[in-house]
Order: sequence, then C-alpha cells, then structure tokens
Amino acid sequence: MIQVNELTLNIPDTKKPRVVIIGGGFGGVNLAKKLKGKDFQVVMFDRHNYHGFWPLLYQVATAGLEPDAIAEPLRKLFDKEYEDFHFRQVRVTSINPATKTVSTIVGDISYDFVVIATGTKPNYFGNEQIKKYAFPLKQIPEALNLRSQLLQSFEQANMINDPELRQSLLNFVIVGGGPTGVELAGALAEMRRHVLPNDYPGMDFSKMKIILVEGMDRVLPPMDPKSSQKTREYLEEIGVELKLNTLVESYDGQLVTFKGGEQIRSHTLIWAAGVSGAQIPGLPPEASERGRYLVNLYNQVVGFPDIFAIGDIALMRSEKYPNGHPGVAQPAIQQGRHLAKNLYRIIRKEPLEPFEYFDKGSLAIIGRNRAVADLPKNLHLSGFIAWVAWLFVHIYYLIGFRNKLVVLSNWIYKFFTYENGTRIIIRPFIRKDDLAGQEFIKKYDVD
Amino acid sequence: MIQVNELTLNIPDTKKPRVVIIGGGFGGVNLAKKLKGKDFQVVMFDRHNYHGFWPLLYQVATAGLEPDAIAEPLRKLFDKEYEDFHFRQVRVTSINPATKTVSTIVGDISYDFVVIATGTKPNYFGNEQIKKYAFPLKQIPEALNLRSQLLQSFEQANMINDPELRQSLLNFVIVGGGPTGVELAGALAEMRRHVLPNDYPGMDFSKMKIILVEGMDRVLPPMDPKSSQKTREYLEEIGVELKLNTLVESYDGQLVTFKGGEQIRSHTLIWAAGVSGAQIPGLPPEASERGRYLVNLYNQVVGFPDIFAIGDIALMRSEKYPNGHPGVAQPAIQQGRHLAKNLYRIIRKEPLEPFEYFDKGSLAIIGRNRAVADLPKNLHLSGFIAWVAWLFVHIYYLIGFRNKLVVLSNWIYKFFTYENGTRIIIRPFIRKDDLAGQEFIKKYDVD
Repeated sequence: MIQVNELTLNIPDTKKPRVVIIGGGFGGVNLAKKLKGKDFQVVMFDRHNYHGFWPLLYQVATAGLEPDAIAEPLRKLFDKEYEDFHFRQVRVTSINPATKTVSTIVGDISYDFVVIATGTKPNYFGNEQIKKYAFPLKQIPEALNLRSQLLQSFEQANMINDPELRQSLLNFVIVGGGPTGVELAGALAEMRRHVLPNDYPGMDFSKMKIILVEGMDRVLPPMDPKSSQKTREYLEEIGVELKLNTLVESYDGQLVTFKGGEQIRSHTLIWAAGVSGAQIPGLPPEASERGRYLVNLYNQVVGFPDIFAIGDIALMRSEKYPNGHPGVAQPAIQQGRHLAKNLYRIIRKEPLEPFEYFDKGSLAIIGRNRAVADLPKNLHLSGFIAWVAWLFVHIYYLIGFRNKLVVLSNWIYKFFTYENGTRIIIRPFIRKDDLAGQEFIKKYDVD
Repeated sequence: MIQVNELTLNIPDTKKPRVVIIGGGFGGVNLAKKLKGKDFQVVMFDRHNYHGFWPLLYQVATAGLEPDAIAEPLRKLFDKEYEDFHFRQVRVTSINPATKTVSTIVGDISYDFVVIATGTKPNYFGNEQIKKYAFPLKQIPEALNLRSQLLQSFEQANMINDPELRQSLLNFVIVGGGPTGVELAGALAEMRRHVLPNDYPGMDFSKMKIILVEGMDRVLPPMDPKSSQKTREYLEEIGVELKLNTLVESYDGQLVTFKGGEQIRSHTLIWAAGVSGAQIPGLPPEASERGRYLVNLYNQVVGFPDIFAIGDIALMRSEKYPNGHPGVAQPAIQQGRHLAKNLYRIIRKEPLEPFEYFDKGSLAIIGRNRAVADLPKNLHLSGFIAWVAWLFVHIYYLIGFRNKLVVLSNWIYKFFTYENGTRIIIRPFIRKDDLAGQEFIKKYDVD
C-alpha cells in the first residue's frame, strides 16, 4: 500500500523550457505530439493512463465496443522515441502563478508554460439527488457501469411479476438531446430491435421505452435545424420517445419528475444533459466564466501570458464564434496543434498568431443507415451516405492502428450479425444501494 | 434499486423433465448444448451473465486481451433458437434433496435433475491475511484488477526515490507453478522485455523481478517431467526466478514470508496456488471429499441418483484416474457432453454408460516461440511447434466467432508489434487501503 507522501514526481531538470500539459485528451495529446523535438521538455499529467476517444464512449455503454477499443495508453502514444517527454498518472491539485508551479497529489513542479486541457465534467446544476442516482457517461468506468446497469435491468425485468416495477426497469430516460443523448438513444433502440428479442424470448420488448429529454425545442441544438428535423424523424422511426422543451426537476433512483409535474418511473436515468469545465484551483475568478477559462485568440488565459487553456475548458470569443467554439473534438485538436506552433514562436521571440477554427462539419449517427451530417458550405447530408461518412470519419480519427483494427472488426461483425458483441456485465464500482452492487460484492465473497 | 425480495425466478412449468444446471462454465455449457431439443426443460443459473474462456484469463491480467474477447454472454450461446431454455443471473444458495428443490437468492425451483457445475474458487488454506492482500485470478473483474495493479505498480515505481520501496513495487511474486502461474510469469517476462522499456524510458527493468513459487519440486506438476524440465529451462531463459519446494507462510501486503523464514518485499503477490470446489450447501458431508463432490462413473453424487456433479467440482475416481481427473477444461467438457447422453438414457429408461476421459493432451505457453505439449502416446513437444499448437488449440476451442476474430487480431497485432494492446487501467473494485483504490475513488469525485 503505497502512500501518497512516499511518491514524488521525479522529473529531471533538462534546462529546456518546460511545458506542463494538464490532461491527455484531444487538446493535450495533439499539443504534445507537435512539441516532439529538441526544443521543449514536455510533462503531461492525467488521472488516467490512457487517451480516450470519447465520441465512441456511448458504444461501450451499449455493448457495441470493448473499452480497450476506444482507449490508447498515453505511454504508448509517447514512447521512448519522444525524448524528454514525461507522463505522470497523478491528479493536479492547483496551479500557482505566483511561484510558477503546478501542485499535484505527489508534489509540485515548476513550469515555463502550463497548458490546461482538462475538458469537462458532468454538470448536475447543483442537484445532488440527480448526481447521486443518475448514470453519467464521461469516463470508461462510467460507460462500463452503465452497460452493466442496462443489461442487468433486462435480467431483473425478466424476473419480476409486478408490472409497474417491470415497466420501471424497462423505461430508460436519457436526459440531454445532444450528440451523446441522441446516439445513445439510437443505439438502445437498435438493441431493442435486433439483440434483446433473441436474448429474452419470453419478454415483450414493445414495452421497453426509450425516452429522450431535451430542454430546448429541438435535438442536436448545435447542428443545423434541417439536421435536427431529420434526426427527430429518424428517432421517431426507430421508436425513441422525444420530450422537447422539457426539464428534469428531480430523480430519486425510481421516479423522474419533470418541471411542470409530469412523472415517470424509471430505474435508469442517464445524464447527458450538461457539462461544466473541469477547472483547477489557483486562478482568480475573473479568469473564468461559466466554469471555463477565458482565453484570448492565442489561448492565453486572460492575465496570464504563460498559462494556456485549450479545448472544452477554454472559452475563446471570436467574431465568428462570439460564444466560443462547440464542445467537440475538433476545436480541441486544432487549438492543441495551433498552440504548439505558438509556443515555438514564443521561444523564438516571434509574434504569436491568432487561432482560427476551421469547421470541418459535424456528424451524428442515429442507427443503421441513419445519420446526419452538416458539412461546410451549408451542405447537409442524411441517411445512408451520412451514415457511411460517420463510420469513415470515426475510424479515421480513432487513435492507434490497433484501435482501428478492433473497432472496424467489431463494426463489420455487428453489421452482418446484428449483434452487439460485448454484452458482458462487469461492474466497475459498487452502488451499495442496488442489487447489482450487492451481487458485485458477492462475487468477492468467496466463502 | 430493485430488492431481492421483489424478484422471482419466473420459470414456466412446461411439464417436461426439468434439468437445473448450476454454473455456466465448460461443463454446464457443453451439457446444456447437448440437451437442446424437445425432451427437457433446461434451467441454468450463474452469478455472471457470461461464459468465460478461463485458459486465457491470464492474458487479460497481463494486458494482452480485453475481457470481452474471452467471454461470451450465456444468452447469446443459448438464444431463442433453443426453446424451453431459461437462464437466470442469480446466486444459488442451497440444494434441498428432501424437497427436490434448488434455492436461489430470488426463490426456489423444483428439479427432476440438478447438475452442479460450479467449478472452483481460490483456496488460501485458511490464511485470512493472504486472502485479504493477495491478488487472485479466477474471475474477469479479478483479472482487470490485477492488470490495473501491475500497470499502476510501474507508474508508482517511476515516482519513487526510496530504492527499497521501488524494488518492492518491481517484485512480482506468483504463488503456484501450475499452468496459470507459469503462463502469467511468462507473459510478465515478455512485457518486461518488449513493452515496458518503451513505456518507461527512465526506468531500469533489469531490477524488475518475477518470482514463481511452487511447493513441489517442479513446475507444471500435472504434466510430464520432460515438459516440466523444458518449462523450467524456458522460464530461466526469459528471466523468471523459480522457487521450488517453497511455501508461502504469510503476506501482509508488503512482505512475503516463506516457510523457513526467508522474506522478500513485494506489493503484488498473485495467488495461483490452490483451488477448492465452489460447493453449495445442502448435501451431507459424506457426499464430499476435499471440497469436491464424490461422484460415480455416471457423475451421480454418491447417494443421490438425480443430483450430478461435473468438471472441477466433481471427484470421480476411476482405475485410470484413482485421484480424479486433472482440473482443466477437457474433463469438464467431456463430462458435460457425456452426462447429456446419460440424461437421455434415463428418461428413455436405458442403462447408463460410465464416463471415460479421453486425454487429448495438455499444453502450456511460456512465451514467444516457447511452449510445451504433452500429447497422447507419450509424445512430448516443445519450442516453436508446441507454441503454434498452443495458439491453434486455444483459438479452436475459444467460444464464439467474434471472440476468435478479436483474439486472433490481437495476437497477430502483438506478434508483429511486440505490443500488449490493452494497457489501460480500469479498477473494477476498490481496495480502500491502497493508492490505486484512492485514485479510483477520486475518479468519481467530480467536484
């Protein structure tokens, strides 16, 4: 049992300008890749030892992919080829501009430049009850837990006589009509159609309800209204119930209460509603707005020329994007790459260049042969062609040859068999108050 | 939060003779497959919803395979094609011969025939301290936990200055020189050689120790002495330290004490030493011996013509195997298939036929191009040809087309890249007393 105080960061001083990158997501990884060379010492901190391809996390939750297929060990991305790169799996506790240091649970380190690339965390808007009972979907263990919950709900529904209780197990409420909510709802509907009737011959899955709740008047609000409309049609075709202009007021683990008073019983409420920046203590309040760091066009946090923020955690206002960039992978990737160039410019005493976001378009998949795409030049695709585009783009951007291989073979397998390959129940952590949790504990009780 | 008392087994009475199979392992699954048809109602209970291919579990623990690659959902193995088959994911609490019922956590069910196929559980020989601190390797969550522990040990060793503590993190003690212990030791040695130096350029892996402890005078005791000798040479070639004729007396999570007094510091002690039958309450003591059910040549538990035991949980003495069969997959598979035929004979009032084990031979892999094989007719192979045989046999017996596909692509990838694909740290459960556990809790502490 190693104690935190027995550990130390152990990072050599190589006299090069030190860039400390906090977070190994899209922004941090793309920045670090571009800094490879002789000019910088690069230090990366992350609580996890892997880089996750989050756009496919919902497929882990719906038993379409194994977790390892969408994650790549950070040490594998930056191996010994990359000299003077140092990864440490630790949690950062604060940034200290006064001393130009970063504090972690195992000690402090000085920086020449620090880049905050911590992304977002679920935002429950202060509702502790929802936070306690809802299933978030931001991390791999959470996806595994949701997968276990979904599958276990069917196992339990199959063993219940009380019709109200059974219905409650078969009601899946997804809060949030963004890409995660939509794609999750679509994947669940496909499971209901192709997988579950085979698994549970005795059960009537016409009773299984997938309810997608969105506070605004359309799904996929960031996308074009045409695509939102098409998505809505697709969702209704595959039997997803849409509740637009609807907000969840409370959830006690069994009963969902909507603003306005309507109620529905459900044992599974999935929270894809809101996120807020995963901020780090140490910077003054005026450096942030709505949980994000205010940055200039060079990704410098206002007031701190040597502290940068990129990706979802950064709020960069530009003429074209007065409210900041969309919270997707592309701005993070592009800001990471752009910041690398600017860091070179800084050490070469060259003037910085402002970041400009190139919108490659956005895609969402609803189901087999059903997807929507907003492309540049106000071009909008849907149906089979958008679906093929979605598959292609996601394989293309997926990290690592191995991941591409595994994901592709999973998808090919799934396409021909209509099967979700990975329907095994692994509980990554225990919610003591539910049966699954108790069952999970029992697994370790070998007596 | 469903409560156990709200659940019920919900199994229809179809008037057919009911076979209750407890356990979805090699024995139970192969029995159930052969009972498919019009003659029986088949009920299967398992605490997990999947059938695991345990001979490859050690590769999950050493980051060679994702858990989903070696597991197949039981409902997928027995889908709606198989009429009057009923799987329930529940824990069986007792068998009641007086009432001819089986009790589970969610209720009782009557049986015409009950088959105990529960396999084994780790045996710590009553040492509670070892049970608390050692890492077992019998279930998928345990393999994921061991994988996390191994990888986290390197992350931590990389952040430690105290040389004694670092050495303790780099000492991996594997107790038990059977197939699991040997294959695990071999896989760790391959990682040390090909993977870790790339991941941790700063670290000196000549300091990493893999110590394999066996109580008898040779490894792989069930195999032929020739193969044991060859295995020993292989293990020494790849740098595994062998401690034969050695027993572990105690382990407190940091210090291993061997019988005789010798001590070694290690933060990771893997327990592959002994197993005992996973018995179910309800049968009299005289029906068991050393934790296994005594069965006759028809797999009937002595004294109970309608209660059967197959696989590792059964102790069948025969002329050729006076001490029972080896605790591997083949006897379980063959007994499952054979018992199916005998159950048909029973309902047809035909005389039963005694089980006879056909030994197809046994294989063990130590590393790349290094394996040993005992084949019938006292034929012994080693080296590359045995290694190829091992790969072929394991792919051949692996359950499910998808698993074959994923495992094969993983192995091909690994063969050419020397990479272990799935080095991501997922903690399936929390050991509160260690840093990893604390880190894991922190992942959920989103504030």
